Order: sequence, then C-alpha cells, then structure tokens
Amino acid sequence: MTKPAITIGVFDSGVGGLTVLRELAARIPHANYLYFGDTARLPYGSKSAETVARYAVGAAHFLHQQGADLLVIACNTATALALPQIRAALPIPVEGVIEPGADAAAAASSAQQVVVVATQATVASHAYRRELEARGCAAHEKACPLLVPLVEEGWTDHNVTRQVAQIYLDEAFAGAFAAADVLLLGCTHYPLLRPLLRSITPKSVTIVDSAESTAKAVAAHLAQSANCPPQPAPAHQQEAALQAAERAPSPLLQFYATDSAEKFKALGSRFLGYAIAHVEHVDLKE
Amino acid sequence: MTKPAITIGVFDSGVGGLTVLRELAARIPHANYLYFGDTARLPYGSKSAETVARYAVGAAHFLHQQGADLLVIACNTATALALPQIRAALPIPVEGVIEPGADAAAAASSAQQVVVVATQATVASHAYRRELEARGCAAHEKACPLLVPLVEEGWTDHNVTRQVAQIYLDEAFAGAFAAADVLLLGCTHYPLLRPLLRSITPKSVTIVDSAESTAKAVAAHLAQSANCPPQPAPAHQQEAALQAAERAPSPLLQFYATDSAEKFKALGSRFLGYAIAHVEHVDLKE
Repeated sequence: MTKPAITIGVFDSGVGGLTVLRELAARIPHANYLYFGDTARLPYGSKSAETVARYAVGAAHFLHQQGADLLVIACNTATALALPQIRAALPIPVEGVIEPGADAAAAASSAQQVVVVATQATVASHAYRRELEARGCAAHEKACPLLVPLVEEGWTDHNVTRQVAQIYLDEAFAGAFAAADVLLLGCTHYPLLRPLLRSITPKSVTIVDSAESTAKAVAAHLAQSANCPPQPAPAHQQEAALQAAERAPSPLLQFYATDSAEKFKALGSRFLGYAIAHVEHVDLKE
Repeated sequence: MTKPAITIGVFDSGVGGLTVLRELAARIPHANYLYFGDTARLPYGSKSAETVARYAVGAAHFLHQQGADLLVIACNTATALALPQIRAALPIPVEGVIEPGADAAAAASSAQQVVVVATQATVASHAYRRELEARGCAAHEKACPLLVPLVEEGWTDHNVTRQVAQIYLDEAFAGAFAAADVLLLGCTHYPLLRPLLRSITPKSVTIVDSAESTAKAVAAHLAQSANCPPQPAPAHQQEAALQAAERAPSPLLQFYATDSAEKFKALGSRFLGYAIAHVEHVDLKE
C-alpha cells in the first residue's frame, strides 16, 4: 500500500525557482508539485516590501487552494521581504531559501567567512548577512547583476560569462575576505552557472547552493514529520487521498504562470532540465 | 521680449528615456522639461498591451496635469503598444520614438536594408519592422538582451561589452542582411554604447539613434508650429506664462519617479550626462 503523496507548492517571481523544484523532485520523488511563477509582475527586486508581501501572500493562497500541503518560497526577494507574512497567512509549513542556504554555508566554513553572490535586490536586503552573522560567520555580499541576464541568454558555458564571473569573484574575494572559504549562491538562477563558477574558484572554496540546501531542508523536515506523524486523517479522507495518488503519475508536476505560458515553457525548460509540456496561465487580482 | 517657454513632458518606464531628454534639451534649450520614469512598474516588456496602455495613459495624464504642452513617449515598448491610446487620451501632441527612428533610418539607407538592435520586447512587437517596411526598407530586428544590463552596470567602454556587441552584430549583419547599411539603435539605453558600437561597425554602416531622431522630429514639429502659430492665447494668459518663464531658470528640469528617488538619481545621472539634483517620488494609483 502506497502512502498518499504530499503536494509541495513552490513559488517564485519567475523561472529561477525551477532550480529549487529540480532539487526537490530529485530528493522527494514521490511528492506532487505545484509551481507558481509570477512572471507578469517580476522583478520583485524593484518593488516595495509591502507590494512584494501582498503579491507573495496572494500566490501562496493560490497554491494552498490548489492543494499544497507545504510551501517553498523559492525566491530570495520574497523570502527576504515577506517570509513572516506568508507564514502568518497560511495554515501549512512554509520554507524560504535564505535560512537553509545560511545554515549550509555556516556549516561548510572553517574560516567563518562567506562570500554571498546574489542580485542587487537580495544584497540590498542584507538578509544573507543577517542570517550568516547570527550563525557566527562574517559575510561579504556581492551583487552580480549581469549573471541573471547571462543565464537567461543561455550563455551558461560562454567565455564572456567566464570573464564576467571572474571579475565579480575577484572583487568579492578581496581585502578582508581574501581567505573566505565558502561561496554561497544566493540566487536561484546561479545553479546553472555552478560548473563554470567551480572552474574559476579555488579548490579550497566550497560552493554552497541555496536551491540545493533548501531542498535538503525540506526533505529533512518531511522525514522528521514522518517519524512523528500527526493525528491520522479520518478513514474516508485517507481513502480519497490514496485513490487520487494512484490515479496520478508521480511526481505530478503542474505549472502556473501569470505571464505568457509559451515564454515560461521556453525559458523554464532550461532551468528544470527537461521540457515543460503544459503551463496554465493564471491572472491573480491584487 | 522672450517667448513663453513650452513645457515638454517626457515619459519612460525607467531612466533610458533620459537619453531622449538629453537630445531634446540640446536641440530645444529654452523649453521646460518634466520627466516621468515609472521605475516601480518596469520593465514594461513583460506586461500585456492592455496593462502597458493603462500605465502609460496614467503617466501621460500626470504629465499633462503638471503642465506639459507636448508629450514625448521615450519608451519603445509603450510606443509600440500604446501610442494610439495615449494620443486618444490627451488633448496635446504626442510623439513616440519609433516613427522618427524609422524615418531617419529609411532616409539614411541606400541599400534599403536596416538592422535594428533592440530589447526582446521591442523586437517581439515588430513595430520597427512594420514602420521600416512601410518606408520601403527591409528590416532585420535583432534582440540584444545583454546590452541594457551592461549599460546599467556602467560597462559602456568595457572589453566584455565589446565582445558581446560584436557577437550580436555578427549575428545581425548576416545572410540577407550582410549588406545592410544602417544600424538603428532601437532602445533608449543604447546611445550610451554609441562610441563602442561605432568602433566595431564598418564605416559604410550609418548608425541611427532613435533618441536623437525623436528629438529632431520634436524640434521640427515645434519650428513648424511657430511658423503657423495657433490662435493666440488671451492677453492675461500670455502675461502669466511670460512671468512664469522669467522666474524659472531655463531649461527647467523636473524629475518624477515611482520607485526610489535615490536609485533614479544614481543611475539617471549617467544617462543624462550630468548630476540630477532632485527627484520627486510619485505614487500613481492604477
């Protein structure tokens, strides 16, 4: 007898969070997944905290209504600006990308010095620095505004991207941070650059990826929940869940986007690692 | 006796339109200028035509209420998607950036073959191709998504930018367009790359800049209006206008932005060519 599958909602302002979904699906293959990309309203980075919180809470409610049992905020800006509000608004567990990334980076650093590469908006929020300092690590947050457009252009193994990344890393691993021993990828686009970044970073530096760290944290959370199971559901609800799980292929993936479904498919497939067959366009009222 | 100064409203989704303002101020130095950057809601390129029209008409009304006698839509996306709606909504002349750019490019091309470099959104609208074909020119529209972030990073004379531009131009001047003799800059960020683009483009290719072409078109429009003056205003209105013009330094520049005034000042000064002292933050309701 199969356990009824859990449904995990994954939310991002765009397609970057698909790198988190990819890691989740690899670690928790029997879950169902609902992915929501708020592509019509990106980038969140230029918006006020109030606006980001309103958008993110709306998307979180949508995913909960579609059946999510657990929510992953796979967006650094939304995590930095709105995680407490999203947690307060939903009756299900909500995980962000910043705490797991900071946990993994702090654990990996002997020097207690971490370089964080991220977008301008994430750096401006100083969310990673706060979390790393709370874990006893000094953090140098380096904004790398060209890396997202280079990834979106598909230049993930391009000589130009190598030069740009080298310039950013030379600036980041400088001064007091010349001996930093962890490079934390604080943007969901950057896992696509991991091989390139690995090739230009000294062997003594450990690369920690927030997407991967978040998936590990969610898998650990679920394993813990399984060991301490909640009150079992009434028999007829268990029955219905089992029947649904048996009818559905596993993992079941459903994609929602607020902008063009075609654009999401074309760009998103690169982030997910395989072709996205269907995207449902949704229009969330503010 | 000085003529009462005209007030020209300039609208863009961000700071790029400041290159149009710079050209306008050079050609029409005695006008007053109101610049509106809808920085909180950029980029317009990922939004629906309906949404862009609603935002642009709102901004246009704002500039008219602040006293604009003539409006320049210094935004390729808003021009491509909403120029008719803006013209219909306002009782003042409205000029976009696409028709003047297409006029100048068609006039400069002997081969009747034009390469247009622009953002993905502008290329997807095919607004330049339509206008150029209507003027008897074939057009190859080439999306150059890395150029805007490279300009915003300040790398306008950087070796990386030179390599990226060379790759784009090699792809653009290829096949049937190998003998194109005009390069049309169809994005308000690109004038900052003009020296770099000039250095890597064959001498036989004329570079036409939509920002400059638009300023020339507006100057020509004003010169024509001056030759065929409209019904003069009542004497007391003329008097008030004169008094206002005498009190104000000329050109009077006023900046409005929907996102952070500080960010607008820092980035905008590079586009305008000199420091922006004051930016008023405005919050337009949708």
